[in-house]
Amino acid sequence: MQGPIQRITGSVTAPRGFRASGVHCGVKTRGTGKGSDKGPLKKDVALVVSDRPASIAGTFTSNQVAAAPVRVSVQRARRDTARAVVLNSGNANACTGAQGMADAIAMTEQVARGLGFTADETLVCSTGRIGLPMPMEALARGIEDAMANLADSLDAATDAALAIMTSDTHEKECAVEVTAPEGRVARIGGIAKGAGMIEPQMRSTLDMPRDGLHATMLSVITTDFAVNPDTLKEALRASVQRSFNRITVDGDMSTNDTVLVLANGASETEEVVDLRSDWGQVFQEALDTVCLALAKMIVADGEGITKVVTLRVEGARSDEEADAVARAVGNSALVKTSWCGGDPNWGRIMDAIGYARARIDESRIDIGYCAQGAKEPVWATRGGVDSGIAFEDQKAITLASEFEIWIRLGLGDGAATLYAADLTEGYVEFNLGE
Amino acid sequence: MQGPIQRITGSVTAPRGFRASGVHCGVKTRGTGKGSDKGPLKKDVALVVSDRPASIAGTFTSNQVAAAPVRVSVQRARRDTARAVVLNSGNANACTGAQGMADAIAMTEQVARGLGFTADETLVCSTGRIGLPMPMEALARGIEDAMANLADSLDAATDAALAIMTSDTHEKECAVEVTAPEGRVARIGGIAKGAGMIEPQMRSTLDMPRDGLHATMLSVITTDFAVNPDTLKEALRASVQRSFNRITVDGDMSTNDTVLVLANGASETEEVVDLRSDWGQVFQEALDTVCLALAKMIVADGEGITKVVTLRVEGARSDEEADAVARAVGNSALVKTSWCGGDPNWGRIMDAIGYARARIDESRIDIGYCAQGAKEPVWATRGGVDSGIAFEDQKAITLASEFEIWIRLGLGDGAATLYAADLTEGYVEFNLGE
Repeated sequence: MQGPIQRITGSVTAPRGFRASGVHCGVKTRGTGKGSDKGPLKKDVALVVSDRPASIAGTFTSNQVAAAPVRVSVQRARRDTARAVVLNSGNANACTGAQGMADAIAMTEQVARGLGFTADETLVCSTGRIGLPMPMEALARGIEDAMANLADSLDAATDAALAIMTSDTHEKECAVEVTAPEGRVARIGGIAKGAGMIEPQMRSTLDMPRDGLHATMLSVITTDFAVNPDTLKEALRASVQRSFNRITVDGDMSTNDTVLVLANGASETEEVVDLRSDWGQVFQEALDTVCLALAKMIVADGEGITKVVTLRVEGARSDEEADAVARAVGNSALVKTSWCGGDPNWGRIMDAIGYARARIDESRIDIGYCAQGAKEPVWATRGGVDSGIAFEDQKAITLASEFEIWIRLGLGDGAATLYAADLTEGYVEFNLGE
Repeated sequence: MQGPIQRITGSVTAPRGFRASGVHCGVKTRGTGKGSDKGPLKKDVALVVSDRPASIAGTFTSNQVAAAPVRVSVQRARRDTARAVVLNSGNANACTGAQGMADAIAMTEQVARGLGFTADETLVCSTGRIGLPMPMEALARGIEDAMANLADSLDAATDAALAIMTSDTHEKECAVEVTAPEGRVARIGGIAKGAGMIEPQMRSTLDMPRDGLHATMLSVITTDFAVNPDTLKEALRASVQRSFNRITVDGDMSTNDTVLVLANGASETEEVVDLRSDWGQVFQEALDTVCLALAKMIVADGEGITKVVTLRVEGARSDEEADAVARAVGNSALVKTSWCGGDPNWGRIMDAIGYARARIDESRIDIGYCAQGAKEPVWATRGGVDSGIAFEDQKAITLASEFEIWIRLGLGDGAATLYAADLTEGYVEFNLGE
């Protein structure tokens, strides 16, 4: 019997056989707007490298305006294996035309040349302001520097996590380990960034047309589990659908959203080829754990936010309709401002449910406010009308920095969960621009 | 030859044969939230009455959570004629169940009884907080008072316009007149309210299933044109589609949105039975003028707004897709905050276009900033990338309180215009709640 999934310290260098680095080259000082000057350090180039060919999987923004690094990485995530991911913050390399594509490819070529593998084995991610040319001279120096600083230490991984931050106020790292039946230990670790332009709806390469198109949230996950490439693609698709694709800060899906996983097998545990096997289920659950932890960190560090609200919708005609209801509520300006004020204004929630792209019956709707960790909500609305519960009893819950809203539609078995945030004066102030 | 359409002073009492009133009864002091205490006066009950049966037409919110007054007025707007509209502010009578329906009907019955016609000839509109029981005692006093104060003066119409305000900072009135070929004069006048929870997508009763469902923007329009009831319904559907359905403040479609027109024929001009006739075209154009003027007043008085931005999208595969692009841009939190800051951040516009429910080709997109009244924009983006136009030349336009953004998609003939507003710290502060 394998052991339970345990959270451990570290991130992308926690699994064996991975090195990372994060350095400063100056992208963030080149007109990339607010936030570029925030954070404890101004690192802006990161590198994550596997010491052997690793199975690769990726999910990417479904925004039709896809950044150059997304277009490049989609093609490479379709392959079986990869060796490295190079990332920069401060410039999204989006809406940059043919030059942007050439620049994204050049970044991968430099890494491949320097580390002795091919460009096809290298993926690339960018995040920052859209529409500016990439400062390639600075980046070339940065990539050289990043290669020279690769290390398998926990600090090296933290440097990488710092180097991908834009408006994030802190780095985002997570790692877990499990003990395999034969006694060996396998680990999964990840870094992520994201604070604004956050409502990812990523697609797996498995779900994209061959010639198809493909935010800004970025995450790189490493694991020393041995996983068959096709199985890894399936596992990531499932995990992202339950984590990164279930968060919203401001409802703006970015041009750059990317999650990548590299699985290098260095744990020497049994290869995962079937996610329904016991060991496959352990891997899926461990990957789910890392993805959900990183996704929740993104919401909790959303631009200007003061509240994290978990929306739990059930009783829709389908999961898709439950999702539509959750997104209508979670992206409503009026609902989000009421959260900021700690006002349990369920009427605004009813209004948003009513214009969701889902069939609803007003007279069947229950809405409850649930304190974080409580088992049952206080039902503010029953059958579409005021339940009679005292306003103060609702407000006691909504004044907290984290709470849940339960919505029962009473029509079917469809359910969805969405991790959302409030809309604050801080968000507006932060995004006024130059 | 009829004369041109002329703007005149006044609103719902400008056409002959209409009386109006607006009084205070105390709804706005009964826990209806912020904004209820704003405005120059606290009138909260309005009445508009025709001295003879008038052709009636209405358009109503397509929110599946429809307020009781919407449900009642939809049925009555299907009829050929009506006599009166009773309106209140401070309470939306939405999510109020069977009691809410009984209350809405009781309001119309009181008016019918007092003025000597039937409840079926009376329509009702409410606006304010959702989910609170209607204070029927106060309302009954208010309706008595409103009936006693009916007058055909310009002041009486202004009282009605004041009495429907919630978070509006001022009353909204408009009137036009035209001279018919035979020399007689016909007029159209309207009042409106709306400042938040504004993205109406109203449907005509012509487009609703018989058993179907049906914000908060309200408008009552009167005219002494003689118009066949079916023709009036067609004319209003067309006008609303080009005006009230083309505005957004915060992207929240309300449970109460309603536009009603009463046409009583008191001008004794030729009856409009065909909108393609010369006189029919004059009527349509005059109605368009009033609806668009009132709709633009709603955006310009949007909660906390500092900028009005007209989005002109062309080159989509269809008008529907052009509309989807305009709404994605006009409701993007990041785009709207950049407007507030006067920042010409076209990258955020590209991002929003990319996730619109429309087919786009990034490499064909042009985005231009156009000063109000200018004939040509400054093209910031050409073919999806930076046009090279100096940032300062763009910013000179976006610093103004009104400007246009032109978006060319280069795919087809579909076009749409949307009147939108910025997202400000003032909006958030105003809506924090209790």
